[in-house]
Amino acid sequence: MQLKCNKIDLLNGVNTVLKAVSSRTTLPILQCILLQTTDSQLKLIGNDLELGIETKVNARIEENGSIALDARIFSEIVKKLPDNEVTIIVDGNNHTTIKCEKTKFNISGYPGNEFIQLPLIEKNNSFVINQSIFKEMIRQTIFSIALEEIRPVFTGELLEVKNQKFSIVSVDGYRVSTREAEIEEKTDDFKVIVPGKTLNEMHKILSQDEDELITIYYTDKHVLFEIDNTIVVSRLLEGEFPKYDQMFLMDYEIKANVDRKKMIMSLERAALITRENKKNPIKIEIKSNEMIITSNTEIGNVYEEIDIQKEGKEIIIAFNPKYLIDALKVIDDDYVDIQFTNSSNPCIIRKVDGDDFKYLILPIRLSS
Amino acid sequence: MQLKCNKIDLLNGVNTVLKAVSSRTTLPILQCILLQTTDSQLKLIGNDLELGIETKVNARIEENGSIALDARIFSEIVKKLPDNEVTIIVDGNNHTTIKCEKTKFNISGYPGNEFIQLPLIEKNNSFVINQSIFKEMIRQTIFSIALEEIRPVFTGELLEVKNQKFSIVSVDGYRVSTREAEIEEKTDDFKVIVPGKTLNEMHKILSQDEDELITIYYTDKHVLFEIDNTIVVSRLLEGEFPKYDQMFLMDYEIKANVDRKKMIMSLERAALITRENKKNPIKIEIKSNEMIITSNTEIGNVYEEIDIQKEGKEIIIAFNPKYLIDALKVIDDDYVDIQFTNSSNPCIIRKVDGDDFKYLILPIRLSS
Repeated sequence: MQLKCNKIDLLNGVNTVLKAVSSRTTLPILQCILLQTTDSQLKLIGNDLELGIETKVNARIEENGSIALDARIFSEIVKKLPDNEVTIIVDGNNHTTIKCEKTKFNISGYPGNEFIQLPLIEKNNSFVINQSIFKEMIRQTIFSIALEEIRPVFTGELLEVKNQKFSIVSVDGYRVSTREAEIEEKTDDFKVIVPGKTLNEMHKILSQDEDELITIYYTDKHVLFEIDNTIVVSRLLEGEFPKYDQMFLMDYEIKANVDRKKMIMSLERAALITRENKKNPIKIEIKSNEMIITSNTEIGNVYEEIDIQKEGKEIIIAFNPKYLIDALKVIDDDYVDIQFTNSSNPCIIRKVDGDDFKYLILPIRLSS
Repeated sequence: MQLKCNKIDLLNGVNTVLKAVSSRTTLPILQCILLQTTDSQLKLIGNDLELGIETKVNARIEENGSIALDARIFSEIVKKLPDNEVTIIVDGNNHTTIKCEKTKFNISGYPGNEFIQLPLIEKNNSFVINQSIFKEMIRQTIFSIALEEIRPVFTGELLEVKNQKFSIVSVDGYRVSTREAEIEEKTDDFKVIVPGKTLNEMHKILSQDEDELITIYYTDKHVLFEIDNTIVVSRLLEGEFPKYDQMFLMDYEIKANVDRKKMIMSLERAALITRENKKNPIKIEIKSNEMIITSNTEIGNVYEEIDIQKEGKEIIIAFNPKYLIDALKVIDDDYVDIQFTNSSNPCIIRKVDGDDFKYLILPIRLSS
């Protein structure tokens, strides 16, 4: 194998596929990136068997071939090379020479055919969405996936198309985060549960550019995301996703319209006093035109007042402040509506008179 | 005690003295910041018994008094308060109320007289230097103090005035870093060894402003740094500082004039191949008009060429690349001189034809 390519292009490619290389495995081939020539491009692949990423880099191919190189060492070498043309030469014994200006590295690799290729995904079912919207939808929901694998489906997010609406949902047993968007093209209904790790990596890869599109293909075992020169293949999570939508259908009679940033600041101050003992809830009191947030622990107590617009009756309810702060922080709007029924049912933080985003949070039962 | 002050002023003061509050102690009073009123200011003190910092904040004093408050909780409260006027009220039972806009905290403190005040330092001996120069001198030498306390004096830096020159020196057994500056005022010769932690905190406190001055007072046990409203008192390290200056007096006949940034890049690339096994040295070959850097390990090998201007004969010598990189990174000049005698004696990295900075680094003996 012999080729020449640009250092910046190569670095971008390597950084993209590196996200799918396992750092925890002890199997050397799984710690590698595959380099494989095509007609006029260098194909790079990382694959940890749950998540696989393939991308292509423009290259002048002088001799076809493939090689698997240790991802950590190869990526660090590429990162530190001068910003100039890079030459890669692999001999019959998998010895790899990487040259750039007056720098020359020799490292050993593994035969390309020992590398585990990405699974082949049938491209029967797909839909197309704007990259920047998909990126935003991930950011606004992924924070509430469960980190522990008590129920595996809680460690991923539901991606669902229903009646021309695309929604992403995460659930961790204490809260539900949902974000939805209209889709323009006619699309069949479907449901998949995608691992959180995959969506975290997708969030990094997706463009902010409002004109860039992504195609999402799905089977009953895998999802494939296609962007320009890059494809990301991920195993799906198996199991039944909780029926979260019924929880949004209760009669939420009480509504408070609140300044989002002021509420974050008040909650963060109230949380200072609870940090030592996470069991301490903060108490929220919705009065005529104000929200009163209080917290009382062995460290001391704090009292906060925020002006609000209220509908419905007064209420006292307690929460883990972190859950409220997490949701309020990913929202971009200046004001949000918060809805309540009573002190033992969840609250919903939502877009003012809208359904774009909805965060359901369970309360903590007050002992008194 | 009762007072009003501006939140930003209070936060700056708290952040300054927080640097001297121990996080490792189990004695609650040592985890505190002392708040003590003066005529028209609030005095704040942090003191971990080795390092103490006192600063003053403008305040409207309504009732004199003092209180010691848990530094972590108090600093987090102040940080999160709205940017407005803060009222602090302490009652006879050390209950402290902190109010700002519609926020009110109540926390408990300890009586101010239980706090351990800073030692009184006699101000007989002192000298004055520009803050920005002192800050730069610390930055350019502190990286090579020893982290382990095998020889306590290695964990600090020598501050010395001799013949109207002020110098700072660190030594860790493998290298010596020195930085010197002229002083304008007539100053008596002196020598003190200041703990690395103190100088690290001083580096953060010192201003970059070229017009700001600092006065340094010293006794045989303590050093006191005075800047505007802030004083920093530190215990000195006891013991004999190594006689480092003799090592600079050898006959360094070989001299290479090198592009500093190019050399850092080449060394960092060569170091990639050695990282797995830190015992692997990199080899430097000074030839007629080039420096060749090579490294050869079980991972592979790397070859680097850099153009240089050379005086004296050719040489092959080996180093721990980290030591060369550390020194080259804190220098601001584009080119440096590197001097050698032979492959078993140290090299010196220094200002081109100057003495402002000098870094002496011991070589690694080549096995062949």
